[in-house]
Amino acid sequence: MCRTYSTCVLHHPTVLGVLLDEQTIHAYARGCGVLGAGGGGSYRNGLLAARQAIADFGAVEVVTVDQLEDDALIMPCGSVGAPTVAMEKLEGGATESQRLLEAMQERLNGRISALMCLEIGGSNGCIPVAWAAQLGLPLVDADGMGRAFPELTHVAMNLAGIPAAPCVVSDERGNSAVVDAVDARWLERVVRSICVAVGGQAAFAAYPMTARQAGQATVTGSVSRAWTIGELLTTHANPVDGLVCQAGATEVLRGKIVDIDRTTAGGFVRGSATVAGLGRDDGRLLRVEMQNENIIVFEDGAPVCSVPDLITVIDPTNGDAIGTEMLRYGQRVAVLTLPCDPLWRTAAGLSLVSPRAFGYDVDYCHEGALEHA
Amino acid sequence: MCRTYSTCVLHHPTVLGVLLDEQTIHAYARGCGVLGAGGGGSYRNGLLAARQAIADFGAVEVVTVDQLEDDALIMPCGSVGAPTVAMEKLEGGATESQRLLEAMQERLNGRISALMCLEIGGSNGCIPVAWAAQLGLPLVDADGMGRAFPELTHVAMNLAGIPAAPCVVSDERGNSAVVDAVDARWLERVVRSICVAVGGQAAFAAYPMTARQAGQATVTGSVSRAWTIGELLTTHANPVDGLVCQAGATEVLRGKIVDIDRTTAGGFVRGSATVAGLGRDDGRLLRVEMQNENIIVFEDGAPVCSVPDLITVIDPTNGDAIGTEMLRYGQRVAVLTLPCDPLWRTAAGLSLVSPRAFGYDVDYCHEGALEHA
Repeated sequence: MCRTYSTCVLHHPTVLGVLLDEQTIHAYARGCGVLGAGGGGSYRNGLLAARQAIADFGAVEVVTVDQLEDDALIMPCGSVGAPTVAMEKLEGGATESQRLLEAMQERLNGRISALMCLEIGGSNGCIPVAWAAQLGLPLVDADGMGRAFPELTHVAMNLAGIPAAPCVVSDERGNSAVVDAVDARWLERVVRSICVAVGGQAAFAAYPMTARQAGQATVTGSVSRAWTIGELLTTHANPVDGLVCQAGATEVLRGKIVDIDRTTAGGFVRGSATVAGLGRDDGRLLRVEMQNENIIVFEDGAPVCSVPDLITVIDPTNGDAIGTEMLRYGQRVAVLTLPCDPLWRTAAGLSLVSPRAFGYDVDYCHEGALEHA
Repeated sequence: MCRTYSTCVLHHPTVLGVLLDEQTIHAYARGCGVLGAGGGGSYRNGLLAARQAIADFGAVEVVTVDQLEDDALIMPCGSVGAPTVAMEKLEGGATESQRLLEAMQERLNGRISALMCLEIGGSNGCIPVAWAAQLGLPLVDADGMGRAFPELTHVAMNLAGIPAAPCVVSDERGNSAVVDAVDARWLERVVRSICVAVGGQAAFAAYPMTARQAGQATVTGSVSRAWTIGELLTTHANPVDGLVCQAGATEVLRGKIVDIDRTTAGGFVRGSATVAGLGRDDGRLLRVEMQNENIIVFEDGAPVCSVPDLITVIDPTNGDAIGTEMLRYGQRVAVLTLPCDPLWRTAAGLSLVSPRAFGYDVDYCHEGALEHA
């Protein structure tokens, strides 16, 4: 069993090659769970919404950026807020996607040709599938993160200089706002405050761009990657082995959650989970720190792995990802880390999403550190 | 000296009859201070902004609703936030008014013909004068309150069923949002949260309406009234007597501020000021409770006067209104109350702005209570 970053990397196709339909949506959603790194909201809720929309409106076509006309407009979208809130406060269905689309089209004075997940992780990989079905639009095989991150600033488009504005925010009651912020940081502040005002969760669309721009400004192949990972979980007898050997994951520890400290405030979940090793990891103790997503893992006070790499907590018996909002005392878990998109390991990427960006006086802990563990 | 509501009511003309220019702006602003009932922001800041804009762009024409075409669009506007913050965080000048106007016109797909003060009180009576000068638009002789109130819901247009949305919010950096809320209560929540996110103060425009609607849905003559009150302060040898005998005011107490408890949070100033009587009021002690504006006055635990009537604290030597953000230990003050617009004494009005609406288990204390005091 390989426990370090191996040479067996994930070969994900650039196109899913199939529709997101009643057959493929389940594996896709489970893959989104793994890519959520604890965040993006529960993939189960998103799966229910996507499945219902596919049943009501039909399957969703997945297209590469290259398949769209250069000037075709893409609308990245998803849900903003704390995953703990999103579990109970659901999107408003077809009227909500329609409201996002119409407000964005009116503001841009143009027609949106395709939706894109702002983040592929968790529920936020699935909700845009539901919206694409409702609106009869294709979904681009790309996203803004290649995972989930806590803030609207943490996206490839921001690094590429695509303006975050205009951003449309909406809640399930029918309240909406079109925000034009001077930069992504101000957009995050204003949108987060609206999200808190409407109850801690809201639907949004931001960073509208052309297909030509998206080719250089997104993480491509994300939808395919999520589906491939979900298929691994289903087809592999041992899901952890499947992820380690075929998706580039590293198993950090297998054990049991012995403490959980979690608060929801200001549109975020923050806290930590303590995991005690079991079996071959007996006697080891990890602390997983979270801010919507799992941010950093400490062992004996030293960082073991961190953002921007993905830290995902899964149920080792079936490979189901467990979001930060679902961690609880006594759960048997495997703590995995998966490499992030190379974009995040650049100096510009790390300035946005290294541990320092989340308030830790710690540099990015890359796979090398793990090999010594 | 008359100390109760007298028969000598204010005869304010329905039209100012003059421009708001370098000659008239000072008296007008001082009148706005009195009508602010402690809130609306410091009239002095608003006066500086208005005077500068008049010098740069020319005088502002004041028009009655009747002088506008029936279908002419009126844009009520002002500053939202805590007066303590607005003292130091100023509007962004001509670019800010331009941004509000353009965003509103784009959203309505129509041309705005005139501005209106959402509230005549304090700085919010003056800032729209500055914007009107910058934009070359007239100012309507009306407002939404006939005073200042803390929330965007506390306006005559809300009572008349004019939708609060669309509302444009902007800060001095260039951030802006167009908010479409399902009702005025949600608009207040969302706009307040944006205001807090951008630092506790923001410029806004809401409740756009036609002149035909405004005739039935506003407090008319407010601009004239503010100017008339300001003139009284200047021309009367004893400003308190002037307000009592010619503006319908009642003097509740003259004394000294002996305690002040004030916090700024969530886009509001909240707290209380304790005023000890001096001279003929020696031995009396009042507590003035504030939520941006002065809300209710207690003496010996019993309410003496309250919203929706205006409670204004002035410097008795010159008649200058002292906003809730400027009250401080040791100040010599006169506590006055002025009758509100009759609109607020209706059942619908009181449901929005009686003491109960501000969290007090007390009914509206009208002038009858004062006569027994």
